[in-house]
Amino acid sequence: MLQHPSVQALLEKLEKQHNLSSILNLLGWDEQVNLPPGGAEQRAQQMATLSEVHHQLASDPTVEPLLQKLESDWDTLTQQEQTVAKQTRRDYDRATRLPADYVAEKAKLDSQAYHAWVQARENDDFAAFAPYLKRQVDMSIQGAEFLGHGENPYDYLIDLFDPGMKAETIEGFFSTLKAELVPLSQAILGSPIKAKTERLRGFPVEKQEAFLKEVTKTLGFDYHRGRIDVAVHPFCSGNANDTRLTTRFNEDVPLDSLFSSIHETGHGLYEQGLPTNQLHNALGQAVGMGIHESQSRLWENQVSRSREFWQFFEPKYRETFPDQLAGLSSDDLYLAINAVTLCPIRVDSDEVTYNLHILLRFELEKKLIGGELDVDDLPAEWNRLSQEIIGLTPASDKEGVLQDVHWSGGMFGYFPSYCLGNMIAAQLWYKVLEEIPDLPNDFAEGKFDRLLTWLRDCIHQHGKLYDTQDLVTRVTGEPINPQHLIRYLKDRYMPLYQ
Amino acid sequence: MLQHPSVQALLEKLEKQHNLSSILNLLGWDEQVNLPPGGAEQRAQQMATLSEVHHQLASDPTVEPLLQKLESDWDTLTQQEQTVAKQTRRDYDRATRLPADYVAEKAKLDSQAYHAWVQARENDDFAAFAPYLKRQVDMSIQGAEFLGHGENPYDYLIDLFDPGMKAETIEGFFSTLKAELVPLSQAILGSPIKAKTERLRGFPVEKQEAFLKEVTKTLGFDYHRGRIDVAVHPFCSGNANDTRLTTRFNEDVPLDSLFSSIHETGHGLYEQGLPTNQLHNALGQAVGMGIHESQSRLWENQVSRSREFWQFFEPKYRETFPDQLAGLSSDDLYLAINAVTLCPIRVDSDEVTYNLHILLRFELEKKLIGGELDVDDLPAEWNRLSQEIIGLTPASDKEGVLQDVHWSGGMFGYFPSYCLGNMIAAQLWYKVLEEIPDLPNDFAEGKFDRLLTWLRDCIHQHGKLYDTQDLVTRVTGEPINPQHLIRYLKDRYMPLYQ
Repeated sequence: MLQHPSVQALLEKLEKQHNLSSILNLLGWDEQVNLPPGGAEQRAQQMATLSEVHHQLASDPTVEPLLQKLESDWDTLTQQEQTVAKQTRRDYDRATRLPADYVAEKAKLDSQAYHAWVQARENDDFAAFAPYLKRQVDMSIQGAEFLGHGENPYDYLIDLFDPGMKAETIEGFFSTLKAELVPLSQAILGSPIKAKTERLRGFPVEKQEAFLKEVTKTLGFDYHRGRIDVAVHPFCSGNANDTRLTTRFNEDVPLDSLFSSIHETGHGLYEQGLPTNQLHNALGQAVGMGIHESQSRLWENQVSRSREFWQFFEPKYRETFPDQLAGLSSDDLYLAINAVTLCPIRVDSDEVTYNLHILLRFELEKKLIGGELDVDDLPAEWNRLSQEIIGLTPASDKEGVLQDVHWSGGMFGYFPSYCLGNMIAAQLWYKVLEEIPDLPNDFAEGKFDRLLTWLRDCIHQHGKLYDTQDLVTRVTGEPINPQHLIRYLKDRYMPLYQ
Repeated sequence: MLQHPSVQALLEKLEKQHNLSSILNLLGWDEQVNLPPGGAEQRAQQMATLSEVHHQLASDPTVEPLLQKLESDWDTLTQQEQTVAKQTRRDYDRATRLPADYVAEKAKLDSQAYHAWVQARENDDFAAFAPYLKRQVDMSIQGAEFLGHGENPYDYLIDLFDPGMKAETIEGFFSTLKAELVPLSQAILGSPIKAKTERLRGFPVEKQEAFLKEVTKTLGFDYHRGRIDVAVHPFCSGNANDTRLTTRFNEDVPLDSLFSSIHETGHGLYEQGLPTNQLHNALGQAVGMGIHESQSRLWENQVSRSREFWQFFEPKYRETFPDQLAGLSSDDLYLAINAVTLCPIRVDSDEVTYNLHILLRFELEKKLIGGELDVDDLPAEWNRLSQEIIGLTPASDKEGVLQDVHWSGGMFGYFPSYCLGNMIAAQLWYKVLEEIPDLPNDFAEGKFDRLLTWLRDCIHQHGKLYDTQDLVTRVTGEPINPQHLIRYLKDRYMPLYQ
């Protein structure tokens, strides 16, 4: 499969690069899970030195002739070889075409802008953050130019997270979603039926931990190759050999730990399903953020918020928390699991309104990068659009435009992936139901291996062999289609709230 | 202090090297504390690649002319500059004379052999570990040869851990100790007075953890710059910015967790006392293992097994474990803390017989490295010498030759440091008592800052400015002298057991 001598030569180099990047990744994990506060400055220095060394390997000039040879032999390459060459070219261009002073300035800005954002959010003072955000917008556009995408910088930024995806395509999806989901969310929010989430109180942390470990293990997460720890924010880090999930605990918000752990488990199952013998190259790496997010969302939502899932786990949940759940009927519990609420904060949102938060951000960053919206006008525009799309105006910038970390790091083009993930998850869900119609019965018996095997076969095993759209088309017979998400949300939520 | 332009140029390079070596150190910590078993192979690869990169920096050819310049200006250098130059020469020679493939192979072997040792110990199967141990012996001898010490590889290995120390000097100390401590331990073991350690049972792990955190914090360990976790083997890792201790818990052996934590805290206090503004060079780094071990032993034994220490902590201990300690008088408890027993396991041994375990290992590794003993014959020779020195034959290799991690990492020449540490600790102890005669009264009030300040001033602040023997002489007025340890053990144990 990977026999071309230039590919072989690349693989050796990629292995070392990947060893270093996976260490960088571990340092990041450790920083959030273990690092004593006094070690922060040293950790920044460690990461700077290791990043520099990694960059030297990634811009090794002997890579260029190998890539040119492969590009001239293109038609004789296997699809696998093409995939490795394509991704290496992408990474190599990024490592070599960005001037050293641009890279240094960007790293400095990222750090300054992050701290400015933390301060600004604390003080609810957007004006203090605005100069940094302006520079991030400028530097993102400049970065796209260096890489030869000066004409369509936002497309380029989106492509960083979802290879092959374009703003125009996303705009098409999102206008369909907007037309359907705004009225759907209003109908649900207007319903007299309300979830009683406030009655879930006093769930001891150790018991929560034991329960979510049982759940994630049952779903198929392999603790022989992974672990779960506590961090401020839930995330999934590492790779198939060593997949590290994090969660956080609050005795009075037990469903947050549980579902965020299941969400991260979905990411982890994807990582653990990638071919371990190709981890150092594109064939053993995730397609992009959209597909990654489809895996986390599918396990979190389609699977774990289903009736069947709770047929199996409710008795165990009640056994673990007999007193805490005593006053709640099965229907109450199920409604709490599928609560829909009007909330200004994206990360606290349910799976219906979550998408609206993404539509808002997409509109805004498209305009920012397109030069149609000035940073100074951003808060007003955020609030106006928030009212229009989500149905609320945030009480402050702290709960509005300043709530997310992404833009402080210049990560424009990242947000759409979350919603792409939701759309792909729903599309995969209806496809697997077509192929295995009695699949939900498995869940009621605590069995998830048929679903996992299907995902392994259709998605995980291919690494980056197919781009997002190609992969979705190959598996489901059509490109990404927002109607599946709309159908899914209506199927699940309309019966619950009417 | 460090103004010579060549020293300045070195410092920049040393900073990057230290950043990478501290990452290697963290990877080692993570391997023992967090790594899922499935990640072992990847960790070996990560460490091999990072070691290779570190080796490239450490063998940077531009270092040689800087060192030569410093060596030609030697008499004009400050003592601090000489220290940095001397240590850099030492490290540089090690880096340039060891071929890159040797270094990479060694790093990989270290990781593989560690995992093989864990398995072998679990299965009591020395034969499964033997091939790795043979390779470690061979690679150690080979390493000494590369560095120009092919004639005296064991001296070279000892010097790695205790700069300036020789096997012959140690042999002199150890024959004095053997002559005095074998009869002392036999006398104690023959005494009708027996510690009732078996009555310490059922100490819940969380309470043990809380208590030992209180103790280690009171001793002065700074948790803002450090942490403590659970690992198979207690150790101290990291540096002054981020000092990581480990311990292990057993509900029925509570004193083990407590005293091993205090021991590691002693190491941690040394690390945290090194000058943080010099961490990247010799002035901010520990002298060697002997001095390091003197710090851990002094806090563990002279301080924390004293009557005064327990005057302060006994009430708190009883408050934490009222039921568990109910049947034990203060004298019973104090005797349990200073129990002397015939035990096959080094790390479970008391401070009297501990030294005998080191004498055993010193004899064996001297023969292994000297080519007088084959790895295959090691278990039999271990058992024979164990009977002669300690007075028992272990029931299995698990309790004998497989008990320690060190040799799996090729760390021959390390064990003697433990006993050097015991000797130095006793010597420092009598010195500080001479200078601050009422010091033990501090302990009875839960105050440890006068001792810590004395250690900071005499030992910690100097980094590697003095070699082991020079430092001991400077502080105590004489080189290492085993009589202090003998005096201390007799002072403490003869009244207790007669």
